[in-house]
Amino acid sequence: MKLLSPADQLFLWLEKRQQPMHVGGLQLFSFPEGAPDDYVAQLADQLQQQTAITAPFNQRLTSRLGQSYWTEDHQFDLEHHFRFEALPTPGRIRELLAFVSAEHSHLMDRERPLWEFHLIEGLQDRRFAVYTKVHHALVDGVSAMRMMKRMMSSDPDQRDMPPIWNLPARQHQEDRPRPSLMNNLSHLLGESGKQLGTVPTVARELLRTINEARRNPEYDSIFHAPRCILNQKVTGSRRFAAQSYNLSRIKDVGAAFGATVNDVVMAMCASALRSYLLSQNALPDKSLVAMVPVSLRKDDSTEGNQVGMILAGLGTHLSDAADRLRHIHLEVNEAKERYANMTSEEIINYTALTLAPAGFHLLTGMAPKWQTFNVVISNVPGPQEPCYWNGAKLEGMYPVSIAMDRMALNMTLTSYCDQIEFGLIGCRRTLPSLQRLLDYLEDGLTELEQAAGLQP
Amino acid sequence: MKLLSPADQLFLWLEKRQQPMHVGGLQLFSFPEGAPDDYVAQLADQLQQQTAITAPFNQRLTSRLGQSYWTEDHQFDLEHHFRFEALPTPGRIRELLAFVSAEHSHLMDRERPLWEFHLIEGLQDRRFAVYTKVHHALVDGVSAMRMMKRMMSSDPDQRDMPPIWNLPARQHQEDRPRPSLMNNLSHLLGESGKQLGTVPTVARELLRTINEARRNPEYDSIFHAPRCILNQKVTGSRRFAAQSYNLSRIKDVGAAFGATVNDVVMAMCASALRSYLLSQNALPDKSLVAMVPVSLRKDDSTEGNQVGMILAGLGTHLSDAADRLRHIHLEVNEAKERYANMTSEEIINYTALTLAPAGFHLLTGMAPKWQTFNVVISNVPGPQEPCYWNGAKLEGMYPVSIAMDRMALNMTLTSYCDQIEFGLIGCRRTLPSLQRLLDYLEDGLTELEQAAGLQP
Repeated sequence: MKLLSPADQLFLWLEKRQQPMHVGGLQLFSFPEGAPDDYVAQLADQLQQQTAITAPFNQRLTSRLGQSYWTEDHQFDLEHHFRFEALPTPGRIRELLAFVSAEHSHLMDRERPLWEFHLIEGLQDRRFAVYTKVHHALVDGVSAMRMMKRMMSSDPDQRDMPPIWNLPARQHQEDRPRPSLMNNLSHLLGESGKQLGTVPTVARELLRTINEARRNPEYDSIFHAPRCILNQKVTGSRRFAAQSYNLSRIKDVGAAFGATVNDVVMAMCASALRSYLLSQNALPDKSLVAMVPVSLRKDDSTEGNQVGMILAGLGTHLSDAADRLRHIHLEVNEAKERYANMTSEEIINYTALTLAPAGFHLLTGMAPKWQTFNVVISNVPGPQEPCYWNGAKLEGMYPVSIAMDRMALNMTLTSYCDQIEFGLIGCRRTLPSLQRLLDYLEDGLTELEQAAGLQP
Repeated sequence: MKLLSPADQLFLWLEKRQQPMHVGGLQLFSFPEGAPDDYVAQLADQLQQQTAITAPFNQRLTSRLGQSYWTEDHQFDLEHHFRFEALPTPGRIRELLAFVSAEHSHLMDRERPLWEFHLIEGLQDRRFAVYTKVHHALVDGVSAMRMMKRMMSSDPDQRDMPPIWNLPARQHQEDRPRPSLMNNLSHLLGESGKQLGTVPTVARELLRTINEARRNPEYDSIFHAPRCILNQKVTGSRRFAAQSYNLSRIKDVGAAFGATVNDVVMAMCASALRSYLLSQNALPDKSLVAMVPVSLRKDDSTEGNQVGMILAGLGTHLSDAADRLRHIHLEVNEAKERYANMTSEEIINYTALTLAPAGFHLLTGMAPKWQTFNVVISNVPGPQEPCYWNGAKLEGMYPVSIAMDRMALNMTLTSYCDQIEFGLIGCRRTLPSLQRLLDYLEDGLTELEQAAGLQP
């Protein structure tokens, strides 16, 4: 039995029917050359034989004296976790996204290891998909992404590769999760020093932080996001939307404006959000504020990672796409410069301070007077070389993240070869037709290309 | 806005992640003659156009001052309720049952009307299926069955039939739900006289009834079911198993033993439970007790229904199949005779009394010292003539009921033409491989045929 970390415990507390706390990934593969038509069914048969399970995929929750622990599931039932499924006719990406939307809305069974692996046949053009769902208390998003990557190979001829639930053990060092929003929160809560057993303790710590924040001279600048429909309570049903965008186009725009790829991606998000909120008659007068995890590494060390969260205005009040990109570029640089003069410890404290109110909302469901940010835009690094799974080429991979009360939309993206892969998850009742954001992202990129003279 | 009845309110209170309170039905259809291969996809297209919604399918829950009401959903989203889905290769009944098992395990989104209609393609032999899921607070099992029947016609040439969510209104009289377990409970709780707003009130009423039961001379005989693995706490994942059995074979056995169809069906269940529990090393020494709804009509009136619940020993301690059938026949007759001398009011009071402890377990999750019964065996009357839905012939229809704490298995059956259609639902962790019960049911029937000399 292993005690849950406070951060992992937090994900269990936060979970309710309207707010499942699992993360996921959608991977799109093409059949290996010469594969038979029933290739996916054969693959399913092989996977059903893979009954050896390695940690953490054999770990279930158990509770003792009100404290949660991980323990091995001695009634492990692979059929519950590995699911072979199919898309209805005509098997377009649209049917795939509807499938993931429905599956991502369902709570998992807490009496079992908190993961599911869905192998999906019935996609057009000799393709198939894998949708993986893992509770955030078991694995964080970045670690999940890394596991999916370890499941694959850069060698198209490699075969007999184990599935994700039976990957060979490797050094703990490399599997260490990177700092993330929740890890920073748990740092604030003293994860390394002490274990935390109860909600009231967490709430008290957060409240103390908020009171400190009120005395902080930067207080005013921290809590300045406008009210927006993105920040309502969510319901229990999700819509997932995903699409690939060409990285070279994004790089060209960045070069033309002297901006980074990340700046351009954020400007695409800003355009998309502006168009969507206009279509809903819900665009705030003030600029939306995005919370963005950024790398803060100052040297070339690869040991560990330093990820800070910056809050950046998205310029959604500006009607000109080029103006928005310049606005974002300035906002991000300013936030980074603020960090540049701080020590690592100061950065983490500052980040935690900035995020504390968000954590407090999450935990208590209280409606506070201030909104720290409107939307999370998270950029997770992905593989730069083509990947293969038992000879099947990975064509695209899309993160499926978490929508929650007051954060009804999450925009997570990753890179793969020459693609930027967007995965948008949101509450489909709070944000009707949110799949339109995909087209608005494309429009946003096109507008920037036009402004840069890259398109007629 | 319409106040929920106490019984419907009860279903909401009882619901938790491990214990969804929706009922369902699985229908198996064959393609109409000459239908194209993409018949089901065309049907899906037509159904997606059917955006007119009639009550109760447009009603969602809302809450005011702690009381729940039904109110019209003004953001109705058909795509959330009507789902077009597919089975993976090879599209056998096995894949269909796996699909229903997974779907029936998922809680519905309470922010929306509590129903889903799944149209399923990809079945072998030019067949397709419909799985309907409706919250018990919205519609009870018998009414749901009746609605599904109204969706169909006995005329194979009829077309343009509306889907279940847009059936024409008809007299309230005919839609009135029959008395059922929960309706009787709510009768006990005074549904007709007063509205009940809080859990404590219900619990107090039930406790009062239990105390009355203790003073009743029949007390000892009421609470006499043995402890059994069927009566454990359940987890959140279900297994659904379903199969058709030949009604003529069952009738022949009944004639040979001077028993009713219902007696034979119960004897099949008894055989199956005995074999299953033996395979799990978990057969109690004492006979299992089944709760069985029976018709108590004494005349030929068709007005209304009088359904009582009887408790009958299943003779699972007897190793001989014929002995078990005789035992059941006596038990059922005895219970019916007990009813025969009572007025309708006395019958309902007696039934409520008998069931009260079960209701009390349900509500409080308390583990009482006595177990009233081990398993529910429910026989819902079905259509006797072939049914068609827009020309597609109904080949089979299987009830999908509710498993809950201390009732980990539910055996519901219905009749259709010359078939008895069993639907078994249970907790797949508490009752491993419960699908084996299907074969054990068949074995039970064969044993009886052999005992009757109907088979060599």
